[in-house]
Amino acid sequence: MNQINQVAIVGGSHGNELIGVHLVKKFQRHPDLIKRNGFKTFSLLGNPQAIDACRRYIDRDLNRCFRIDNLPSEEITIYEEIRAREIQNILQPLNENFVDVIIDLHTTTANMGICLILGNMHPILLDLAAYLSSVNPLVKVYIHEQPRNSGFLRSLSELGFAIEVGAIAQGILDAELFQQTEKIVYAALDFLEQVNQGENQPKPKAKPNTITIYKSLNAVDYPRDENGEIKAMIHPKLQSKDYQPLHPGDPIFLTFEGREIFYQGESTVYPIFINEAAYYEKGIAMYFSQKQEIDI
Amino acid sequence: MNQINQVAIVGGSHGNELIGVHLVKKFQRHPDLIKRNGFKTFSLLGNPQAIDACRRYIDRDLNRCFRIDNLPSEEITIYEEIRAREIQNILQPLNENFVDVIIDLHTTTANMGICLILGNMHPILLDLAAYLSSVNPLVKVYIHEQPRNSGFLRSLSELGFAIEVGAIAQGILDAELFQQTEKIVYAALDFLEQVNQGENQPKPKAKPNTITIYKSLNAVDYPRDENGEIKAMIHPKLQSKDYQPLHPGDPIFLTFEGREIFYQGESTVYPIFINEAAYYEKGIAMYFSQKQEIDI
Repeated sequence: MNQINQVAIVGGSHGNELIGVHLVKKFQRHPDLIKRNGFKTFSLLGNPQAIDACRRYIDRDLNRCFRIDNLPSEEITIYEEIRAREIQNILQPLNENFVDVIIDLHTTTANMGICLILGNMHPILLDLAAYLSSVNPLVKVYIHEQPRNSGFLRSLSELGFAIEVGAIAQGILDAELFQQTEKIVYAALDFLEQVNQGENQPKPKAKPNTITIYKSLNAVDYPRDENGEIKAMIHPKLQSKDYQPLHPGDPIFLTFEGREIFYQGESTVYPIFINEAAYYEKGIAMYFSQKQEIDI
Repeated sequence: MNQINQVAIVGGSHGNELIGVHLVKKFQRHPDLIKRNGFKTFSLLGNPQAIDACRRYIDRDLNRCFRIDNLPSEEITIYEEIRAREIQNILQPLNENFVDVIIDLHTTTANMGICLILGNMHPILLDLAAYLSSVNPLVKVYIHEQPRNSGFLRSLSELGFAIEVGAIAQGILDAELFQQTEKIVYAALDFLEQVNQGENQPKPKAKPNTITIYKSLNAVDYPRDENGEIKAMIHPKLQSKDYQPLHPGDPIFLTFEGREIFYQGESTVYPIFINEAAYYEKGIAMYFSQKQEIDI
């Protein structure tokens, strides 16, 4: 049996994703909201300087900085690298797994609804995902394998996951999405409490036998010119159509000159993270995923 | 009769409002698109450093820097102040009205549709607005008096106006809004060509006798605590409801704790710019406006 002793809720790893920022501030004002029997929950603002500046990051994307680098502290000069090490020292002092579960709160400009991003297919995470899907049918489950050294905050813990909520612009709040995210956090804590009680299954909702997952295949960039400038936009027929099938020959991009570009692949895929603002600079127009039903 | 000799189209005054940026880049690749008989059109990127950084501005909002300050150049050190003076020197060398019309392209996270922002009620601007409304019924007209020294780029020219398009997140493109904005720019140029031909009225659409305008009343801030931190979000019932009536007693904000806050005014107003990301730091949750039908 897996005993969960510590749960960390992190918001504002990206300073312009305000739902996580203000949820964590709320939890810090009202710690009872995230208190559960059997484990300790604490909440943390990821990137305070970026939150103050209302930017994703100051020098580097914090959520790509959680690597094991073995560098001596004095050699780390970039703000987010320093902050990543600070957080690591809070979550894993002496490199022990002090925190068993990390819930990392994010938002996206893509029409992702309430998406759980799992870095692995641990049975507890899949059970959690099934439970949360039963609490809110808008919940979707995205599997993006992220090993320990991938740089993501959630990869620090085997039971780490992100809640990715959208569509919402950077730098704003949305009351409905705020409240939906809040409910999912409470439901996740309730579930983890039951895991500790040895039940390891959701209550009071009936446990479904299967769950739909979207498994990451590959990132897709925008068409670009010789200078690296984008030449096309997401096609209007694909905009906001996250999780929906894209068939060979379907329109995918529209150039600024009005020419349609079609998906040339040989199999149907399920695009997600379509038109995420922060991914333009990363060279990602969307991710292709594979839709699967799996038994749990 | 007003003779129009020069028209300037500016995009990217805010570096993360990508529709204007990429429209101007398109016009610079294909100058024929904005060429009209009777006047010269040129296009300009407002804030190149902010565009490269994909941020609204580097040090200060450029679109508040167009003031007559009489400072010697060497005393100006802030990037956007320097850039504002550069643009002023291009648009108004020797402080003459070299450019008769400024079309300033913006986007907003508020659900503003295709909004023309007029800084004054010049008859040509109102006729233009009526014409563009007939070209695209989604066009709305917002009057926000902005005298010459208000700092706005459009205030440099009596016939300056902004096209404010949304809802769209900062840092992304939207193909449909891109194409709608593009069509409005071409229609505006067509109209100005007719003004020069002494017709001063739209063709081929019939000229309506009245036009609906939203006239700015005042800005409204979020509820804030003693530290200036916001305590509430736009109420879900008001979110995305730009241009719709807000009656006394209607919900306007929702605190993070879930308490509803109601509009306490005595008369019905028409909120616009609801939940614009860039206005959080300016202390503006929305503008209240007054809806009017006026004869033209």
